[in-house]
Amino acid sequence: MRVLQDLAALVGAAHVLGAESQTDSYCVDERALYHGRALAVVRPGTRQELVRVMSLCHAAKLAMVPHGGNTGYCGGATPDSSGSQLVISLERLDRIIAIDTVAATLTVEAGVTLADAQAAATAAGLLLPLSMGSQGSCQIGGNLSTNAGGLAVLRYGTARDLTLGLEVVLPDGRLLSQLQGLRKDNTGYDLKQLFIGAEGTLGIISAATLKLFPRPRAMQTVFAAVRDVGAATTLLSHVRAQLGDNVTSCEYLSANAMAQVAALLTDVQRPFTVEYAHYVLLEWAEFGDRHGPSAAHDIEQLFSPPIADGLVLDAVIAHSEKQRLALWRLRENVPAAEKALGGSIKHDISVPLGEVAEYVGRTSTQLLARWPTLRLSVYGHIGDGNVHFNVLAPIELDAAAFKRTHGADISALVHEIAQTMGGSFSAEHGVGLLKRDLLAQYAGGPRLEAMRAIKDALDPGGLMNPGKLL
Amino acid sequence: MRVLQDLAALVGAAHVLGAESQTDSYCVDERALYHGRALAVVRPGTRQELVRVMSLCHAAKLAMVPHGGNTGYCGGATPDSSGSQLVISLERLDRIIAIDTVAATLTVEAGVTLADAQAAATAAGLLLPLSMGSQGSCQIGGNLSTNAGGLAVLRYGTARDLTLGLEVVLPDGRLLSQLQGLRKDNTGYDLKQLFIGAEGTLGIISAATLKLFPRPRAMQTVFAAVRDVGAATTLLSHVRAQLGDNVTSCEYLSANAMAQVAALLTDVQRPFTVEYAHYVLLEWAEFGDRHGPSAAHDIEQLFSPPIADGLVLDAVIAHSEKQRLALWRLRENVPAAEKALGGSIKHDISVPLGEVAEYVGRTSTQLLARWPTLRLSVYGHIGDGNVHFNVLAPIELDAAAFKRTHGADISALVHEIAQTMGGSFSAEHGVGLLKRDLLAQYAGGPRLEAMRAIKDALDPGGLMNPGKLL
Repeated sequence: MRVLQDLAALVGAAHVLGAESQTDSYCVDERALYHGRALAVVRPGTRQELVRVMSLCHAAKLAMVPHGGNTGYCGGATPDSSGSQLVISLERLDRIIAIDTVAATLTVEAGVTLADAQAAATAAGLLLPLSMGSQGSCQIGGNLSTNAGGLAVLRYGTARDLTLGLEVVLPDGRLLSQLQGLRKDNTGYDLKQLFIGAEGTLGIISAATLKLFPRPRAMQTVFAAVRDVGAATTLLSHVRAQLGDNVTSCEYLSANAMAQVAALLTDVQRPFTVEYAHYVLLEWAEFGDRHGPSAAHDIEQLFSPPIADGLVLDAVIAHSEKQRLALWRLRENVPAAEKALGGSIKHDISVPLGEVAEYVGRTSTQLLARWPTLRLSVYGHIGDGNVHFNVLAPIELDAAAFKRTHGADISALVHEIAQTMGGSFSAEHGVGLLKRDLLAQYAGGPRLEAMRAIKDALDPGGLMNPGKLL
Repeated sequence: MRVLQDLAALVGAAHVLGAESQTDSYCVDERALYHGRALAVVRPGTRQELVRVMSLCHAAKLAMVPHGGNTGYCGGATPDSSGSQLVISLERLDRIIAIDTVAATLTVEAGVTLADAQAAATAAGLLLPLSMGSQGSCQIGGNLSTNAGGLAVLRYGTARDLTLGLEVVLPDGRLLSQLQGLRKDNTGYDLKQLFIGAEGTLGIISAATLKLFPRPRAMQTVFAAVRDVGAATTLLSHVRAQLGDNVTSCEYLSANAMAQVAALLTDVQRPFTVEYAHYVLLEWAEFGDRHGPSAAHDIEQLFSPPIADGLVLDAVIAHSEKQRLALWRLRENVPAAEKALGGSIKHDISVPLGEVAEYVGRTSTQLLARWPTLRLSVYGHIGDGNVHFNVLAPIELDAAAFKRTHGADISALVHEIAQTMGGSFSAEHGVGLLKRDLLAQYAGGPRLEAMRAIKDALDPGGLMNPGKLL
């Protein structure tokens, strides 16, 4: 094909991958739910090359599939099976463009991994608070294209909230570049907001300017056993009322989630000698130089009312960074523990914070009434109203087979209850291929019509990541 | 006209204002820059009525001008002079819909004043941090349509950052309603972001769900004289490094701005007995129960390095709420002081935070080189990189006449320097009628084309606030 020759001339033949052995890893998603085929994989080495790659594709009416760290859960970066789509990998756009310590901003290319972006901020004495399990391999472009959430949304917001500026290549190769990092700029529609969370369906994010924050002097971390799910959100309200808006994480683990993790992480000591039904990992930031020695005493005081009220049944404080990381490993390894048990039917629900307990209770009851031997693995960012209400097959059944036969019915119930409570079927993972039908089902009417009108306005040829999201 | 009869039948004849004496106040903007004429002013009493009003207008191809508290600085809510545009006032949509103390959210109709929304949050023991001088009359719908900034953006963000959910009536009367207040929801394009800051050109915001925050236990307020503009931003970096991300405001006043305010507010004691060239008002929030008596001592310690370094020349601490409010009155009355002197040529510049000193220096030098007797009134939200670089006529000249003869040249210079430094000509006031030409000039090319494509996609009939913004 002429366009492949042109692409090779542009980015170098070594960066236009055609052989299946070379393109394979770009054609299957993280969860191996989708297996596609690519016309080729092209890896531009500069943003200027990306502009010209997209201009060429536009002229040749070639469909483009942007590809970052490939850690997404919904198949948003996988080409379809036609073999006609060009995968554009951003991996070589991995430059730290600028760091401004006065303005507290970091400007990076799209292919910089989240961990490398965090490290650049740390080296400058500042904090990039976006963080998640996949940070070693996920890339900033993908983080923004999916509006990634993660472990500190409670205090710092999602990827969207951390974005001050964006550079985007439009489907026809025109460049929208606003990387000045202005804190305030009310000059017309805030276009960057459209590309954040658009999963590459409106253009390709090539660079971004992110907000940085003062580094906390210390993090305080408490792992608590709580009476029930409602006690977790009540505890959060109590702690926030006392500590103010410096609570950075409020994560939940059900007894099952904890048991699975404990079975996987045989080297990590469990925080309590007895088992409880519900656990919360609470963390907050301390700034300045004003606490220090009295911190443990302060924390005991902080927790004594919820303990007296019976909300908190037991609690441990991390007394060292090592202890803190051990507590976090319990939370972060839930997905790995599920995988070790054959995988789960995953969900990514959010409801208003006050409804979380009701949601978890109602959904558990209805699922177990219908399938009494299901194993529920409920955990997640409860402080954001976001629970991963995951479901494992009954222990005596084959996980993959059970998912095939029961997955759709189980997910329908989990999503339907969320919907009736004003919730979302995708709090942080996006839509991609996996939840496109759910979007059509639950966001139908004017919302979907408006999305389609915007898609048609910005990508009239339908070349950007076709089949994803809409 | 038939449609006016239909509107009267729908909302009641008393709420379709036709006589000039009734419509006058809706047809002139806050700054009296624009005087228009309305076909009529309609005041729907419920959101359902708003939907039906807009459906009627759409069917009759009638242009609609949404109208909130009418406190905008750019003429965005004023009809043109044709007498063919219908003003839709949101003032009767003034209901507090819901307040959720667990989720920390407030849901209000568009016509609720900012002060009433703040009061509702306060009554529930929480904080709505959006605040600005006009809060007694500006309305939430207008705050969101212009993405208002104000006095606590440094810590809490702009109106956009505070918005969790939006209800919007599209130009043809279809309703987009997402008021659940989810903290996380990645289901397709985040449509609400388009309507925030769109100044009513894509639809009318009818209600919103806003983020609330824990109320600080106390605010600490320091008014400091600093060596120069650069010292102000360096001081902020120092304080943030020490106190962390609880600094809520960092406001700047030049000597001229201070002198004007002091002349206006004869009842307020000036903080210092001598005059300085540059002042900063710094404020931060304290949470929890852990400081108290030592606060003043802590603050002295906090400021001793910048005093030793010569950045801070003098400083006063507010020891009571009364003292705090007196310091704030100095800052908040700069616009009133300018008005008392015959008004100013106003600008609303932002640049990256590290560039503010350079921007103020360069612009002052160039303006005074050309017009040596200009009086510069520079002040603003310097912690956001946002300065109101206002210019008063030479004292011997008539302010209005000078503005007519010199305003365009002066503004061109002020904006051009901002542009060359990667800044914005409208940090927080928006575009409206006043800055439409600037938007075309500075945001031309792909950015403006993308905005026009979106406008055409969502308002194909061009009925929403025609002539504004684009």
